[in-house]
Amino acid sequence: MAIPYPHFTATENADMDAALLLPSSPSVIITQDNLKKIAAYKAVEYVESGMVLGLGTGSTAKHAVDRIGELLRQGELKDIVGIPTSKKTHEQALSLGIPLSDLDSHPVVDLAIDGADEVDPFLNLVKGRGGSLLREKMVESACKKFIVIVDESKLVNYIGGSGLAMPVEVIQFCWKFTAERLRRLFEEAGCVAKLRTFGEKDEPFVTDNGNFIVDLYFERSFGDLKAASDAILQLAGVVEHGMFLDMATTVIVAGELGLTVKNK
Amino acid sequence: MAIPYPHFTATENADMDAALLLPSSPSVIITQDNLKKIAAYKAVEYVESGMVLGLGTGSTAKHAVDRIGELLRQGELKDIVGIPTSKKTHEQALSLGIPLSDLDSHPVVDLAIDGADEVDPFLNLVKGRGGSLLREKMVESACKKFIVIVDESKLVNYIGGSGLAMPVEVIQFCWKFTAERLRRLFEEAGCVAKLRTFGEKDEPFVTDNGNFIVDLYFERSFGDLKAASDAILQLAGVVEHGMFLDMATTVIVAGELGLTVKNK
Repeated sequence: MAIPYPHFTATENADMDAALLLPSSPSVIITQDNLKKIAAYKAVEYVESGMVLGLGTGSTAKHAVDRIGELLRQGELKDIVGIPTSKKTHEQALSLGIPLSDLDSHPVVDLAIDGADEVDPFLNLVKGRGGSLLREKMVESACKKFIVIVDESKLVNYIGGSGLAMPVEVIQFCWKFTAERLRRLFEEAGCVAKLRTFGEKDEPFVTDNGNFIVDLYFERSFGDLKAASDAILQLAGVVEHGMFLDMATTVIVAGELGLTVKNK
Repeated sequence: MAIPYPHFTATENADMDAALLLPSSPSVIITQDNLKKIAAYKAVEYVESGMVLGLGTGSTAKHAVDRIGELLRQGELKDIVGIPTSKKTHEQALSLGIPLSDLDSHPVVDLAIDGADEVDPFLNLVKGRGGSLLREKMVESACKKFIVIVDESKLVNYIGGSGLAMPVEVIQFCWKFTAERLRRLFEEAGCVAKLRTFGEKDEPFVTDNGNFIVDLYFERSFGDLKAASDAILQLAGVVEHGMFLDMATTVIVAGELGLTVKNK
């Protein structure tokens, strides 16, 4: 059940208002970006001084990283070590003065905060529309706690249910062959497989690891997620996929009617 | 049971002698490279004109590619299309005038011939000590028939049983973290994980796909191969491993006492 914003504690509401510069009128229109920010700020309340933190990537996670930087500057947080999940987040965190490290030096991460593209009723996720699914999965599979922050548009009845992309990172070598094998795996779910491109010239998008992304689109649910994950990973040529199964420990959803916190 | 070389047909013996320039004396010492060549030449007998052929990589497969080039030049084979499994084999095949293509254009391969580093009693393989396991697996998983050619030193009682490396291709990003997770997966089998290096400066070996190789060494059998394969592939950061399970349809073993052909 969503917690309506007016039912927050006075401190929470004050924080939120300060963060969002919301007028007190209940008729204010809350933008999607406001919702992302509300979820992000709520997640950062779980951060404690001394933690090793996984720093997510994307438009929602960006707000969390900004907020962590702010609390460090204000002295409300100390001795944080950030593990960025992409080159982009690395740069953002550097510019905010967040001390950074990596999994080689800090193989155990206390808490990661990141967005998601889809969240199903069992807290399984699709991630990676931003293209950094692999590093995100490496960091977030090394976490004691993984808090996912989304606006309510990301809730789906089943994985693939948004009709938007489920990304798969593949090696460049013979990517068409791999894309066709992926499509055939999910033929019964009406799967379409497309190479991710960018720019006016439709150049292939290249990940931080030098690979391509094949985006899968589904007409229907493809059923057993674990079986699908194994089948995808068994294809030589596949590096990683964007399903994050049984990884999120908490999902914070910001909707127009309030915040919902779902725990595993 | 091995077929002793003297029991070959007259033609086979003539071919073999011509190929190996063996004296007829039974006391001749057959080198390991001779054995590799015997197995390779036997495998090429399965090649027919018009086939799409997966061309393997390594010291044994090299003999098969040489032989295919020779038969094309002599006009005994025609209309062959080769799909090389590495940049090195690509160059070798080019220099021999073998027409080449790739999996994008030829997604179905009639026959692949390749070496292996280990063969267990169920025809499961370890491959990739040469570093091209990923492309080999892509090509060889697209094959109708996959003939493996080895000298008898490659036969093991169980996968990992040679005490030599079982390679895992990993992304460069935080490879130490991935290597440690791999080691811990197989802790009970006494696993040691080492980054593959080369040259005097011990620089990391980089695969054709821009990744690193972590070599796993085992003191004991790690048991269920399928479960091990799934566990390895589920680690974010792993691209592919060198176990080729249930893929070989025929294994040709050349030993000092003769040739053995094992079919699945």
